[in-house]
Amino acid sequence: MAVTINDIASHLGISKSTVSKALNNASDVSTETKQLIMHTAVEMGYIVKKIRQSPKVCIFIENMDYQNPNQFGYGIVSGFRKMAKAENWTVDVHAVTPDFQRVHAYDFFMMREGYQASFVLGFTLLDPWMAEFHQTRFPTVLYDNYIKDNPNVASVGCDSAEGFELAVRHLVKLGHQKIGLISGPLESYILEARYQAYLAAMKKFGLEVKEDYIGLGYYVSESTKTYVPKLYEQGVTAILCSHDIRAISAMTECSDRNIRVPEDISIVGFDDLPIAAACNPPLTTVRQDRIALGKCAYYTMTSLLNDVPIGSILLRAPLIIRNSTGPVPVPRE
Amino acid sequence: MAVTINDIASHLGISKSTVSKALNNASDVSTETKQLIMHTAVEMGYIVKKIRQSPKVCIFIENMDYQNPNQFGYGIVSGFRKMAKAENWTVDVHAVTPDFQRVHAYDFFMMREGYQASFVLGFTLLDPWMAEFHQTRFPTVLYDNYIKDNPNVASVGCDSAEGFELAVRHLVKLGHQKIGLISGPLESYILEARYQAYLAAMKKFGLEVKEDYIGLGYYVSESTKTYVPKLYEQGVTAILCSHDIRAISAMTECSDRNIRVPEDISIVGFDDLPIAAACNPPLTTVRQDRIALGKCAYYTMTSLLNDVPIGSILLRAPLIIRNSTGPVPVPRE
Repeated sequence: MAVTINDIASHLGISKSTVSKALNNASDVSTETKQLIMHTAVEMGYIVKKIRQSPKVCIFIENMDYQNPNQFGYGIVSGFRKMAKAENWTVDVHAVTPDFQRVHAYDFFMMREGYQASFVLGFTLLDPWMAEFHQTRFPTVLYDNYIKDNPNVASVGCDSAEGFELAVRHLVKLGHQKIGLISGPLESYILEARYQAYLAAMKKFGLEVKEDYIGLGYYVSESTKTYVPKLYEQGVTAILCSHDIRAISAMTECSDRNIRVPEDISIVGFDDLPIAAACNPPLTTVRQDRIALGKCAYYTMTSLLNDVPIGSILLRAPLIIRNSTGPVPVPRE
Repeated sequence: MAVTINDIASHLGISKSTVSKALNNASDVSTETKQLIMHTAVEMGYIVKKIRQSPKVCIFIENMDYQNPNQFGYGIVSGFRKMAKAENWTVDVHAVTPDFQRVHAYDFFMMREGYQASFVLGFTLLDPWMAEFHQTRFPTVLYDNYIKDNPNVASVGCDSAEGFELAVRHLVKLGHQKIGLISGPLESYILEARYQAYLAAMKKFGLEVKEDYIGLGYYVSESTKTYVPKLYEQGVTAILCSHDIRAISAMTECSDRNIRVPEDISIVGFDDLPIAAACNPPLTTVRQDRIALGKCAYYTMTSLLNDVPIGSILLRAPLIIRNSTGPVPVPRE
């Protein structure tokens, strides 16, 4: 059933050896012929099953910094590389944009570059390749994204529901009831997951959710500028934030307005970036173990290559309690 | 912070070497002293971190057959063993009962037998060790069970929600709308998950769920005897079953009552046991890839031992379409 080099050759009416050379990117085949053969191979669903002597995998990354240890992506890429290195995989990292994705079809790019599999970080639901992942034949691991109907694509991430449940439990113990959410737009798989996690945690502890307790905005500082005072006026005494960056921005906004953290309002982040412990006050947050995420992604990739059909892996999301959360304040007049 | 052999020795006022010998099950320490030392070690939270030269792991199994290839547990145990063997782990399999669990505390048993970790199959929520898993310090992987608050315990299983969504989509395409569920009592994590998966899939396709469409009973043949005719009288034209065994029992019940499968009613199972393809008619069912489950469980165990805090792994649950499902029948008079 699988498409062979023979099939491609007879479909195009050219020799098998030319097809083979083109797929191996040999120098004695013209660029035009290579392009034609590779496009045809992708369209016919040809897939390189044989792992080459120096197997190659690609990390595609967008909307995420990874080049120094303070940045979110750093640990993920390091964890992945560490595992890959032990098994002699070459790991390339490509920063990609939606424009790049529009120009280069995913399967075609993977085949042309000789990648056996990929790990995809930081994509939103609007990224062009997200649609292509529904059909791709390349083992593809998505961080914080999920593709329903393609067993070649798996998901890894931390358990948002667990993290926010722990956060709300902690706040409830401190006497909070009016708990708000500051997050980004729901056109992202993970922001939708965090939003649902917030609703579920509030429901679990019997707390009321009002529309006015929730602030969703694309630009971080603009949305905290809008929503911190708005939520505070609604009597919200604690705010969950979708990411540490939003939590830190919310604390800055509080500071600008002489709202004390945690005396007047408690703030909780998500990620546990290195900066979280160094904030003033140090940030209570849900930890994403980024080295472990990278290791898991590598394992998931090798599982997919070995026909172990992992759909998703969720890592634990422990709450790290620091000083940005405290007892509920005495009601204001 | 970790409890050491020294701590145990000074707590009991005995020598460090006696503690060490007892924990290594040496023959020159009396049974009573060993018991005392091991119990104390467990209570103090001592854990054997060092992997011994011949590391040992245990599969605990209950309510599940695994000794021949037609049985559900066989592939899971094989997949696990295959991975473990490659890394020189010894794998013991213990069939356990609730009574056994009541007599032997989990951590104590693990320590006494020198197991580094375990894989637990077929437990219900009523099993005594399920309560102990909330506190255990031993890396423990549960098939089809989940412990919320202990990062030493992880879960592996197939995605019930995906499987039942695929099943309902398939039935809807065949014209079915009145779709029922036959399952077991909800005192099991996985039966609760299947139940929720059924409700979610029905909601997803805008189908009405009536209480009379659902039959939950402990004993397989007794409950199909009760619920197959009951659901059929309600006008149900297709039944999802929590497991192949229930589905096969439902087909037998249909045959006894001259209800034709799939002409009068469609039946869907869950598991894809070897027997599913050999039934008359061959059973449409959701596949659990049992070899892959075993492999995943092994990987998860090694991840926990290496501080990669996996909470859960869900494998894909593809629908295998055979002949027990067909077009919705013309409405009966």
